[in-house]
Amino acid sequence: MNTIENLKKIREQRPLVHHITNWVTIYDCANIVRTIGGLPVMAHAPEEAGQMTSIASALVLNIGTLTVDLVKSMIIAGRKANEKKIPVILDVVGAGATDFRTDKSKEILDNVKISILKGNSSEIGTIAGAEAETRGVEAISLKGNPLEIAKKLAAREKLTVVITGEEDIISNGKDSYICENGHPMMGCFVGSGCMASSAIGTFASIEKDCAVASLNALSLLGIAGEVAAKNAKGPASYKEMLMDEIYNIDENTIKIMERTEKIK
Amino acid sequence: MNTIENLKKIREQRPLVHHITNWVTIYDCANIVRTIGGLPVMAHAPEEAGQMTSIASALVLNIGTLTVDLVKSMIIAGRKANEKKIPVILDVVGAGATDFRTDKSKEILDNVKISILKGNSSEIGTIAGAEAETRGVEAISLKGNPLEIAKKLAAREKLTVVITGEEDIISNGKDSYICENGHPMMGCFVGSGCMASSAIGTFASIEKDCAVASLNALSLLGIAGEVAAKNAKGPASYKEMLMDEIYNIDENTIKIMERTEKIK
Amino acid sequence: MNTIENLKKIREQRPLVHHITNWVTIYDCANIVRTIGGLPVMAHAPEEAGQMTSIASALVLNIGTLTVDLVKSMIIAGRKANEKKIPVILDVVGAGATDFRTDKSKEILDNVKISILKGNSSEIGTIAGAEAETRGVEAISLKGNPLEIAKKLAAREKLTVVITGEEDIISNGKDSYICENGHPMMGCFVGSGCMASSAIGTFASIEKDCAVASLNALSLLGIAGEVAAKNAKGPASYKEMLMDEIYNIDENTIKIMERTEKIK
Repeated sequence: MNTIENLKKIREQRPLVHHITNWVTIYDCANIVRTIGGLPVMAHAPEEAGQMTSIASALVLNIGTLTVDLVKSMIIAGRKANEKKIPVILDVVGAGATDFRTDKSKEILDNVKISILKGNSSEIGTIAGAEAETRGVEAISLKGNPLEIAKKLAAREKLTVVITGEEDIISNGKDSYICENGHPMMGCFVGSGCMASSAIGTFASIEKDCAVASLNALSLLGIAGEVAAKNAKGPASYKEMLMDEIYNIDENTIKIMERTEKIK
Repeated sequence: MNTIENLKKIREQRPLVHHITNWVTIYDCANIVRTIGGLPVMAHAPEEAGQMTSIASALVLNIGTLTVDLVKSMIIAGRKANEKKIPVILDVVGAGATDFRTDKSKEILDNVKISILKGNSSEIGTIAGAEAETRGVEAISLKGNPLEIAKKLAAREKLTVVITGEEDIISNGKDSYICENGHPMMGCFVGSGCMASSAIGTFASIEKDCAVASLNALSLLGIAGEVAAKNAKGPASYKEMLMDEIYNIDENTIKIMERTEKIK
Repeated sequence: MNTIENLKKIREQRPLVHHITNWVTIYDCANIVRTIGGLPVMAHAPEEAGQMTSIASALVLNIGTLTVDLVKSMIIAGRKANEKKIPVILDVVGAGATDFRTDKSKEILDNVKISILKGNSSEIGTIAGAEAETRGVEAISLKGNPLEIAKKLAAREKLTVVITGEEDIISNGKDSYICENGHPMMGCFVGSGCMASSAIGTFASIEKDCAVASLNALSLLGIAGEVAAKNAKGPASYKEMLMDEIYNIDENTIKIMERTEKIK
């Protein structure tokens, strides 16, 4: 699904990917954009969040350590992104764990036209109104079929839904995809979920079809994650190798290893 | 002292360890919890600090980059932790370096029942009222015997005191311990002190005896730190190997290498 | 130019280098100071920014994720630094990308006597009033000769100007230097620019000649960056090796590899 072509495009065009994100993984969010080939920037002050968005090619919003002020800046940036017609990715980290996260996620969705809504199964389940439990930022349980939930939510909200997990599920309501690339070690260090959102933002900055952009990003990460697992000695060396692999990945590796599927 | 059993318990139960911490080492705080086997979360907004605490099994407060607002959230979260009877760890990073840090440390102690008070020798000395000098976040000097200071402070404040250093000292006023594990390379990168607090919080989430939990965490880190030192080429590769070792550590390594002592 | 002697001095004296910096690279800023041999501290609360500065040997201000409040603390800290006659380094990250960054850079320059003004070519060009384009935090273009711009700006503002890039340019208006050390891989991970500012602050804390201190820091980083490039497999392993090399660097390596030049 154009992963190779889109990766090339990113490396040629070096799109600016603006973030208002959390303080835990902010470095990794920036660094994965750079490693893929884009230019990351983070500017959360309300005075500049809009102007920085106006020169960017995508906007990534991540509520991992949200505050009332940060949400205000997210809405300012999001509206500017809507005006400029650049894609907005919203990662609803921890939705369901506290009312504040659930409510603020909905407030952002009410005020900004989101292009891609991303979370783990219980976070997305919470937004969809399903029965779900989130422990901190970890999916514990979701009642219902994740693919069906993604499809319906995508159709209802008119956006692309991405549910990350053992298998990643992507749906824009019409087209649905599954990405089977990835490795359990990706869950053994902090930040792979946030990095996935920033990677999705990077691909969405040059690929208009948001479902395809999400699929590209997740298969790139997943393939690099599988290669890294061969030599890593633990989660810290694994993370380093994962980043090196993303940087070094070649066409042939992507061709051979990509395991994505369009669902009828 | 049950290090092996408690580590197993963490990996089975995956306790949620909530943090209100500093912006310098926030990633490492989260990542060490995950590497040990728990689930980290960071939620500092006053609107959710309490609710997130109510689903957590331990709360870690770290004043490394404190502000007035952050201290307010710490007190909200701390009181909820007291209500829920989950342990609260307070790392008084930089106490003594500025009046603000010293005063706010005391304000937190006055408003929250702390379970484990942790710092380096001059930080703890400052809280104890001893003559001490802290340069930034570094212990420069402490007048008096650290073990005696820890003991008295623990008895006075009715909590467990942990003083990290070449030898780590732990006392709850009655029982006192020394942990001799560790390696000088642990002081050659930024964050080992903060990581120690988060590790202590992780063990305290499943071990009721706070002195034992602290001892477990420090000996785990210290042992991994000794193993890592054998192959590291500098502080950055050392930090990576330290994390990998924590993840990979086996019962036998702990049994053979643990050097802790109960002081009469 | 005394790189070896000054590095020794840092390792003997362990100067405290205070930072008010950004949330993306704050860990790397702290960690490079520690790796070189100094003691980093970060204290941005207005209540303690001044007092922390008063016990420090240098102050590094970095506007990478600035807010109105952070700029207030920078000015408090900067004025205390001026009073105490310790050097102040200002890294104008992203100046030119938004009006807010350009305006706040000038506000800091108007309120604090800056010793070393550092940025990439378009950031410094923006402050100098030249025609320049900054995309996020990346230099896109600068009209004019960077060395001439640095010289004039240094003379006008009575400070040392550092322009980082393929070749680093340093000028205090009278003496100008070029540092040719470095490697393209230093631009393939996030944070090398911020790390350079913190390294400059570390050298400036023990070397009165700010142009020489800047040259020392940049050639140390550049040499380590060249050595690291020999074995790294990608940007993540490269960053780790760079840090290890800085820690391990010996006199002979510096002597043989240093490529700096005084411009007439």
